[in-house]
Amino acid sequence: MILTTTTLPLATRAANLTGSIIDSSTSLLAAQTHDIVRFAMGSPADEAVPLEALREIAAGRLAHDSFTYGATEGEPELVDALVEFSKGTREPVSPERLTITTGGMQGLDLACKIFVNSGDLVVIESPTYTNGSATAASYGAELLEAPVDENGLVVEALPDLVAKAGRTPKAIYVIPNFQNPSGTTLSLERRERLLELAHEWNAVIIDDDPYGLLRFDGDDIPGFPELSPGDPLLFSVRTFSKILAPGLRVGWVDTDPEVRQLVINAKQAMDTCTNVPAQHIVAEFIRRGGFAQHIETIRAEYRERKIAMRDALERHLGDRVRATDPEGGFFLWLTLQGEDAATNTSELFETALADGVAFIPGPALSPSGRFGDALRLCFASSTPERIDEGVRRLTVALDRAREAR
Amino acid sequence: MILTTTTLPLATRAANLTGSIIDSSTSLLAAQTHDIVRFAMGSPADEAVPLEALREIAAGRLAHDSFTYGATEGEPELVDALVEFSKGTREPVSPERLTITTGGMQGLDLACKIFVNSGDLVVIESPTYTNGSATAASYGAELLEAPVDENGLVVEALPDLVAKAGRTPKAIYVIPNFQNPSGTTLSLERRERLLELAHEWNAVIIDDDPYGLLRFDGDDIPGFPELSPGDPLLFSVRTFSKILAPGLRVGWVDTDPEVRQLVINAKQAMDTCTNVPAQHIVAEFIRRGGFAQHIETIRAEYRERKIAMRDALERHLGDRVRATDPEGGFFLWLTLQGEDAATNTSELFETALADGVAFIPGPALSPSGRFGDALRLCFASSTPERIDEGVRRLTVALDRAREAR
Repeated sequence: MILTTTTLPLATRAANLTGSIIDSSTSLLAAQTHDIVRFAMGSPADEAVPLEALREIAAGRLAHDSFTYGATEGEPELVDALVEFSKGTREPVSPERLTITTGGMQGLDLACKIFVNSGDLVVIESPTYTNGSATAASYGAELLEAPVDENGLVVEALPDLVAKAGRTPKAIYVIPNFQNPSGTTLSLERRERLLELAHEWNAVIIDDDPYGLLRFDGDDIPGFPELSPGDPLLFSVRTFSKILAPGLRVGWVDTDPEVRQLVINAKQAMDTCTNVPAQHIVAEFIRRGGFAQHIETIRAEYRERKIAMRDALERHLGDRVRATDPEGGFFLWLTLQGEDAATNTSELFETALADGVAFIPGPALSPSGRFGDALRLCFASSTPERIDEGVRRLTVALDRAREAR
Repeated sequence: MILTTTTLPLATRAANLTGSIIDSSTSLLAAQTHDIVRFAMGSPADEAVPLEALREIAAGRLAHDSFTYGATEGEPELVDALVEFSKGTREPVSPERLTITTGGMQGLDLACKIFVNSGDLVVIESPTYTNGSATAASYGAELLEAPVDENGLVVEALPDLVAKAGRTPKAIYVIPNFQNPSGTTLSLERRERLLELAHEWNAVIIDDDPYGLLRFDGDDIPGFPELSPGDPLLFSVRTFSKILAPGLRVGWVDTDPEVRQLVINAKQAMDTCTNVPAQHIVAEFIRRGGFAQHIETIRAEYRERKIAMRDALERHLGDRVRATDPEGGFFLWLTLQGEDAATNTSELFETALADGVAFIPGPALSPSGRFGDALRLCFASSTPERIDEGVRRLTVALDRAREAR
């Protein structure tokens, strides 16, 4: 049968499915054959992933019940292990609020599916993790970009921004700790004020916190669940991606029990259940004990790497750049200064890749393409030596860009 | 902070997130402590899952690259293996049309995300796999239930149904082979007619075929991709769930390359990438060879089980029921006859569970709750001896229901 169609009968939202430069860089980098220092993806270092333990657990635990369908809400043994594990953190979780998800990304998809109507206003940080904002956009959200400073989202700017938008937001998407991409942390005062605003507006806070357990300097700031326990307007998205391994695609959401039923219903129409072998592996990894110690170890390592990156930036670039100084997490945000500010980082990406260093350009971290003079560097994936080499290569690329003008 | 909210700011679609009785039965059954013959879930038999090979592959193949982020479109080694594997089937696939998905369910989610606007008409089979129709409903589709007979979807009834609906459909959701739940197969004539109608209406065919490789009787009927190669209105959803193991949550979609870019974009906002260890395990399983032989073996086994179930039904229930006679797949559809037709199978489910047998009641397989006199039985998961015992228990439950009237 040969038939032609004039136009594909796409849904209106297809125009909003713009794709992720962050994720596409995984494919792009995989296709390169020359040596590249990888500051682009937010992946844990290979050395930070307990490969031998994971392989051993896989060989020992995987059984028939690992290969059949599991409960949509999560494997009971993982739920139990997570409840137990969370008792040692500032965010104890309970089974009636918990749903295991296919990574943190699915947590964001679930939040938007349940709360975001087409045309709804959704506040996002600027810059932000654009995969998260893209999920909101894929449900037809109108994105309101709000500024970020050294204390995270500028919450006190929101009332004016919202007044200008002419309607209150349905959701506020925020990464409170060591924000992706800026590395900044939302202050306590702002957290409290944001909770007030959310209730004033009856807006849900999509509380995306993949890095909260990876603080390596300074003092913990209470998270939203601690500040407002049992708050039905909190939708907390968590993941094992940064503290264990992203390839497993295992995360969880902590929500009001009423919302949880909708989460389960929505997830059934997304992927039935999360990969069962991965759930069994994570559960067993927790049960063996030593997870807290594992996190302690990688925190110390990431601290060293952050310092190494800041030192290398100082050494190679000095006051040609301004860098944030994160107290945890994976990322540092670089803003080009002086003459270098004329360099567009999206264009710089190409030459830098040829020079052997990869990063995420600023415009990829804002839905409206702001921050052409900035870029995101992941310090977590590379050793201090490689970090120095990567920053050196970045300097070469910046020099070339300057000369080309 | 103690604040109260009057109503959760849910999206309109939250009302359509009704949840899956099919999936919920997994949780329900896991909570039972007495012996139950499981005809409910569409899971492969434990004996049909090559556990030792999967464990061995996990121990041997899993490496650092298994635990980090993978490319959204799929791990290159799985794409290569699948392309190679597909050459031995009637549906060769090519990398530029292929995206690896988190099970077939995500394939359906992607199709609806890309094609279904809120308010769009979507044709579904009645009865159908309600997780699939629920996905369409979760995007706000208006579902048009079309009848199924022994030759599958009654395609010739569609023009009238569509005329009555007053507008043409945006998508047609069809399971062409050994349909879930009826076990029927769409005839060649109807496949050809459906392709014509799709083009007349500019509607996409969501071609969900998890069982196509599991034919154990009769002759293959060419699938949609074979009948209309490269057709942009075909969105073909496939999975390893039924031919290897559902817990892995690995499937694929075969689409027009233009649609594929939207698939990748949409998937980035869903789960970043499919579980990487599972992709490596499936790739290695294919590469070792013997997958075709594995499928041959389970086909023969499922044939025996189907015969065992039909025999047991004849022996225990005779003309109290009418059963379909599938030529492949997992399911057989039972319609109660005579006096038993007064038994509502949703109510029967409770007593039958107490009597030690589980099935999916007919109303759970139609969004509008039709088929109160019917039920779905999965013959694939149980041995012939257990099948006989299960049907005996079902007979006891039916007797009780009769006596209770």
